[in-house]
Amino acid sequence: MGGNRRRRSCVSGFDHESRRALFQARLAELSVDVAMCLPSGDLEYLTGFPRRAPSFGNIEYAHQWTTGALLRPEGEPVFVVPQGYSSFNLPGGVEGDVVQVRNLDDGVEVFARTLARFGRIRRIGLSARTFSRTAVRMVELTGGAELVDLDDEINALRRVKEPVELDAMRRSGRICDLTMGQITSSVAAGVTEFQISSRVEYLMRKHGGKYPSFDTGVFAMGPALDRDASTRLTAEPLVEGLGVSFDFGTVVDGYCSDFGRTIHIGEPDDRYREAYGLVVAAQEAGRRAAVPGATASEVNAATRAVIDDAGYGDWFRHRTGHCIGLDTHERPFISEEDTTVLEEGMTFTIEPSIFWPGTVGVRVEDMFVCRPGGAECLNTYSRDLVAV
Amino acid sequence: MGGNRRRRSCVSGFDHESRRALFQARLAELSVDVAMCLPSGDLEYLTGFPRRAPSFGNIEYAHQWTTGALLRPEGEPVFVVPQGYSSFNLPGGVEGDVVQVRNLDDGVEVFARTLARFGRIRRIGLSARTFSRTAVRMVELTGGAELVDLDDEINALRRVKEPVELDAMRRSGRICDLTMGQITSSVAAGVTEFQISSRVEYLMRKHGGKYPSFDTGVFAMGPALDRDASTRLTAEPLVEGLGVSFDFGTVVDGYCSDFGRTIHIGEPDDRYREAYGLVVAAQEAGRRAAVPGATASEVNAATRAVIDDAGYGDWFRHRTGHCIGLDTHERPFISEEDTTVLEEGMTFTIEPSIFWPGTVGVRVEDMFVCRPGGAECLNTYSRDLVAV
Repeated sequence: MGGNRRRRSCVSGFDHESRRALFQARLAELSVDVAMCLPSGDLEYLTGFPRRAPSFGNIEYAHQWTTGALLRPEGEPVFVVPQGYSSFNLPGGVEGDVVQVRNLDDGVEVFARTLARFGRIRRIGLSARTFSRTAVRMVELTGGAELVDLDDEINALRRVKEPVELDAMRRSGRICDLTMGQITSSVAAGVTEFQISSRVEYLMRKHGGKYPSFDTGVFAMGPALDRDASTRLTAEPLVEGLGVSFDFGTVVDGYCSDFGRTIHIGEPDDRYREAYGLVVAAQEAGRRAAVPGATASEVNAATRAVIDDAGYGDWFRHRTGHCIGLDTHERPFISEEDTTVLEEGMTFTIEPSIFWPGTVGVRVEDMFVCRPGGAECLNTYSRDLVAV
Repeated sequence: MGGNRRRRSCVSGFDHESRRALFQARLAELSVDVAMCLPSGDLEYLTGFPRRAPSFGNIEYAHQWTTGALLRPEGEPVFVVPQGYSSFNLPGGVEGDVVQVRNLDDGVEVFARTLARFGRIRRIGLSARTFSRTAVRMVELTGGAELVDLDDEINALRRVKEPVELDAMRRSGRICDLTMGQITSSVAAGVTEFQISSRVEYLMRKHGGKYPSFDTGVFAMGPALDRDASTRLTAEPLVEGLGVSFDFGTVVDGYCSDFGRTIHIGEPDDRYREAYGLVVAAQEAGRRAAVPGATASEVNAATRAVIDDAGYGDWFRHRTGHCIGLDTHERPFISEEDTTVLEEGMTFTIEPSIFWPGTVGVRVEDMFVCRPGGAECLNTYSRDLVAV
């Protein structure tokens, strides 16, 4: 832990201080006296406090519920970092005003003492995901302060990306492009999806990705297999006549990528060629529609129309995409229910599919940034039909 | 989605109905009118509702904050499942009383209508981790009900494992044993930790593990490398004269494993041999101490004593272990601050280490179940010193 040293305003090119200034202005407008951000994309956005690797089962140390940063309308954040958390997840420490919670401390007492520095607290803000223990204890320790959900507030700050964020996302996407190029030669009859996904994750890490940004999917569909896209990996050897869809991404400087292509094993039939062409055309229609002022649902509709009009609408069963950045799925979602007006600099996936079990499975997915002339692609990988 | 069919009381051998009966009795005692459990180990324990694969960045669909189950002191749970969540994560549906939230629905309205079925709500229980949006909306929709943290309550139910849970954990541990045996031949000078960890994760999956239970660690330490155990993976090729520590686990029927061994490349020096022997002896001392009636901190002290007495205490820098089950880290923790009295059937790791950067790095970790004669190991892999 770094003690009470002055926090640098800019780490890795990200200007957390300016982001916090906007956030703190909103706290003042909302009369929020203190906001608690647990380790999350929200906290990383506002302070640079890193997240640990993902885990299926919860990972937790003593006093975990106290971990994060307390922010107020004015002044610097106060970080609370328990001993176990810091020794495992923050070997480099955190700079700034840091309250350590030792294993043998009374965590409630330390947290109460820290909260007391904020004076009278009537309204407590919470970032998107929290520990129930943290929320309930804060209400108790403040004698019944009101809880305020800050999810929308922080999302409003995060949704339009700064140039330095776009740079990180391009680098994150570039790793997907490189990985896709290198994995193609591994796709063949007899190989299993497990083997391919394992190599995808290895390649992403080798090219500098920190973790997978979500669970890697490698799933074969086609006439030879009555399987749906919801089963993302199997141990069965691939066979000829299947389209193998890839869905993967990684993390660079905290920023997620999300990428997809489909490769065919053997000579594709006419149905596959038609579906492949439709999916690529649908993505392009979505890209052209994704201009500032359009709504997310309009982009979804423009993408869907290509597949609907060709009669495959029943097999495009999910939303067109989602915004992406420090989290894999960020709002707005490129989906029928989301009427958010797109702004220049928002980043999102456009990922139409035709997933028809036992017949054909194709998806093409790239990341885009909203631009006046139509969205600009953050990936560079070809969308040409590939058969191996 | 399954509509309104009767929920089976027993899925995969787990008797969720009996677990819920105990939980519901506690809700009654605590005067909690409704408990909201989001997808988590808590929810899976009480209902069998599965968790999705872990992801670094948040994965989220429309109305995500409504997802989970509402439970009351009497009666069956009510599941709330948004369309996007179910189509991606629950292709098999959920049996029981299920409220679907379609993309185009007003999520607040559907959730409010569902809550109204519970009558007057004065106290709302929350499982361990929640969405701020869910907590805050529930307070609003109930006109200011009080929030109650149920983390300790559900943990009290989960901490002593049933035979069917021990069986799942043995199978989860068995995959680690098999993987360790098969990965040993991959450890050699010139190979990278990335390559080895990638193969570890592939082998765990091949043997039936669903996901890694946490981020796989493969980290070399020794006189040839000034590196600490907090860096869990690197791209550098291994060299002779290093101890390579493994830390990995997988998921079987929702249950996590957590396993560790250290393998030496080349002939170990006396320091490594001494450290290795101490770590194995420390684990055995902890195992013997872990009887019903002992406290978690006493087991920690017994384990530490072996390493402290030999003069290496400064390099055993973390807790001895943690309980484990549906989550990787569950309370109680086998740690200095945790005075919980152990009970027969609690499952935990004992994982002493000597991590001395630039000198030696050794850890041995297994899962144990608390038994009157000393803890019983859930792994079967040898602890003999291995040099390759």
